[in-house]
Amino acid sequence: MDRALQLAARGPAHGPNPRVGCVLLGPPGHGTGPRPVLGEGWHRGAGTPHAETEALADAAWRGHDTRGATAVVTLEPCAHTGRTPPCTEALLAAGIAEVVHALHDPGHRSGGGAALLRARGVRVVAGVRADAAARLVRPWHHAVLHGRPWVTLKLATGLDGRVAAQDGSSRWITGPQARAHAHAVRAAVDAVAVTTGTVLADDPALTARTRTGSLAEHQPLRVVVGERDVPAAARLHGPGGEVLHLRTHDVATVLHVLAARQVRHLLVEGGPALATALLAADVVDEVHAYLAPVALGGGQAAVGPYGATTLADARRWSTAEVRRLGQDALLVARRRPVTTAPGADRTRPRAQEEEI
Amino acid sequence: MDRALQLAARGPAHGPNPRVGCVLLGPPGHGTGPRPVLGEGWHRGAGTPHAETEALADAAWRGHDTRGATAVVTLEPCAHTGRTPPCTEALLAAGIAEVVHALHDPGHRSGGGAALLRARGVRVVAGVRADAAARLVRPWHHAVLHGRPWVTLKLATGLDGRVAAQDGSSRWITGPQARAHAHAVRAAVDAVAVTTGTVLADDPALTARTRTGSLAEHQPLRVVVGERDVPAAARLHGPGGEVLHLRTHDVATVLHVLAARQVRHLLVEGGPALATALLAADVVDEVHAYLAPVALGGGQAAVGPYGATTLADARRWSTAEVRRLGQDALLVARRRPVTTAPGADRTRPRAQEEEI
Ligand SMILES: NC(=O)c1ccc[n+]([C@@H]2O[C@H](COP(=O)([O-])OP(=O)(O)OC[C@H]3O[C@@H](n4cnc5c(N)ncnc54)[C@H](OP(=O)(O)O)[C@@H]3O)[C@@H](O)[C@H]2O)c1
Ligand SMILES: NC(=O)c1ccc[n+]([C@@H]2O[C@H](COP(=O)([O-])OP(=O)(O)OC[C@H]3O[C@@H](n4cnc5c(N)ncnc54)[C@H](OP(=O)(O)O)[C@@H]3O)[C@@H](O)[C@H]2O)c1
Repeated sequence: MDRALQLAARGPAHGPNPRVGCVLLGPPGHGTGPRPVLGEGWHRGAGTPHAETEALADAAWRGHDTRGATAVVTLEPCAHTGRTPPCTEALLAAGIAEVVHALHDPGHRSGGGAALLRARGVRVVAGVRADAAARLVRPWHHAVLHGRPWVTLKLATGLDGRVAAQDGSSRWITGPQARAHAHAVRAAVDAVAVTTGTVLADDPALTARTRTGSLAEHQPLRVVVGERDVPAAARLHGPGGEVLHLRTHDVATVLHVLAARQVRHLLVEGGPALATALLAADVVDEVHAYLAPVALGGGQAAVGPYGATTLADARRWSTAEVRRLGQDALLVARRRPVTTAPGADRTRPRAQEEEI
Repeated sequence: MDRALQLAARGPAHGPNPRVGCVLLGPPGHGTGPRPVLGEGWHRGAGTPHAETEALADAAWRGHDTRGATAVVTLEPCAHTGRTPPCTEALLAAGIAEVVHALHDPGHRSGGGAALLRARGVRVVAGVRADAAARLVRPWHHAVLHGRPWVTLKLATGLDGRVAAQDGSSRWITGPQARAHAHAVRAAVDAVAVTTGTVLADDPALTARTRTGSLAEHQPLRVVVGERDVPAAARLHGPGGEVLHLRTHDVATVLHVLAARQVRHLLVEGGPALATALLAADVVDEVHAYLAPVALGGGQAAVGPYGATTLADARRWSTAEVRRLGQDALLVARRRPVTTAPGADRTRPRAQEEEI
């Protein structure tokens, strides 16, 4: 499974589909040594073959017989026909005798693969290194489970939590290393959103750039939220991802529209009005707080009042990482796991379906 | 010198005197091996013998002859009589032939030891590992050079830079590890200051406590800044350091009074009014920013407008350290070195003299 997880990590973090890796092992022999690897594969993104199909093709290309083999896969094999045929059928056709998978597929169309395989006589072992597999596909898993994108809120503030000085100047609060990190995050998400206010104030391009300044291979969808027009000359109309202007203040609408467009991971870069609305709706799943050693003293705070008046009611996340980036600090924190009754997840809305 | 620095670090970080370490080495022999250590010493705080005297006593106790020996010391030996006689005299009386020191003594009463020793025929090598020695006595060195305490501003904020929720609640924004760290800092400084406003709002004890909750050995002077009365029942009147109430808003007055009381290192724990006044006066030498993964959304910002209206004019420090403390992040940043003409420091006021 470690190897399958490594293979999965080769796939892209963005896109409608999860990263999946698969290793095919020969049937158990009579010795105690490791079982031979017949084939390996990983998913390269929507519209390309699934990891299981890749691994079967690899085994065929290597001239191996897969009958009686074991498929070790990071996600439960899918049971439905999307742009590609179901993996369960491919595994059955190849004579696979056993499937060991990590994460359960939460999709109601794609899910159910394990049950189908069991019904057709395949031995299925579920849940092996499920946590590691879940980490690898966190936004996707969350999006499919909850029917809305995983929301990462980016804040770039001074020590006093302000996102701009009194005159509105905010370039640059953080240094080049923090900004390069933020660009790498953009290159890993499906969409990046800002308010009309921030477009009018800062005129950001909202592109993902490499360290050399060139456009990264993957460009996120650029989303502008707010009722005002965006000037035709705005930098975000330049080269980069598609631009989507949502003339609303309602974050539920924003998330619904993006979910329908297969956005699994949304990065929100402000401004404060949008950050505040997301907090009020309790849909901030992750925070990337870049902290620069500067005191702005005036200017807008990163977020405004969102409904919590006392400390005990304030939104709190669980810290995943603290690191130094040049002169700045980055704190990454995520939604704290909700303790739900077993199976409670199953009752949640699953409006957003994975394209698989 | 590494050994001398190690010895120096055994002394207390607080107090009017610097931490100093001294190693006495036998005269160079004919071989190439290391020279024998005749004695070692370090300074244990004001009123106790200086490091050089300690090392000479150690050598005498060990039965070594110090004539022709080399004294390796982290600070230029002092040349004046305070509570103890000048070290230069002790070194001369012991027949020391050579003095190797790291940091130059910036005090105008205690300084000048190197020149005096040279005039009396002792070979003096200055500036060996001066940076490391300076780090060890940073607040002391700054205080003696600039005639006011080194000011560390502590901020404990949410991701939006607020120090309290809308209803004023601020206990606890940060977690136990951050708070334990803050207590260890209190135990290393000379004084800790807060506003009357914060005393009335939070009723802090302003003591330094160990992890077990007991009072640390050293308790900082407790300083309250502001015109209102502090209730007799306030917790800061309980066991702990001496209490000093300064009925002023003028930070220059505060620093002047504390300098006169031999305070080298002042920790300011808020509230926002005092933090803002310190920023306006540009006397924040160090910031300890504890950042908790919570968004308060309302409530007071850590600092208010202090005169910088645009980003380029905002106070910026140089990051020394970023670390994780439980769920929280700590960013330590210090005043960026001012590029002054050589010898410029010598023209600065030196109102505050070290008690040596
Ligand atoms: N450091 C950082 O991380 C960072 C990031 C972003 C921005 N900034 C700074 O923040 C400042 C932006 O200033 P700003 O006053 O324009 O604030 P803003 O929060 O960026 O924009 C406010 C505008 O956003 C629109 N909006 C979109 N969704 C909304 C919602 N749910 N609720 C209310 N309004 C919503 C509204 O415009 P319509 O009238 O068009 O609907 C509103 O007037 C600039 O100084 C910029 O530099 C800093
Ligand atoms: N998280 C943290 O790090 C932290 C630390 C401290 C406080 N806090 C929070 O901050 C809040 C304190 O609220 P607060 O409104 O009372 O603010 P404050 O800034 O603590 O106190 C304001 C008062 O300080 C006095 N003061 C002293 N020096 C001053 C100066 N140079 N300029 C102006 N005033 C000066 C004045 O009182 P007089 O009228 O008596 O002169 C003024 O009214 C509380 O909610 C507390 O929990 C948080």
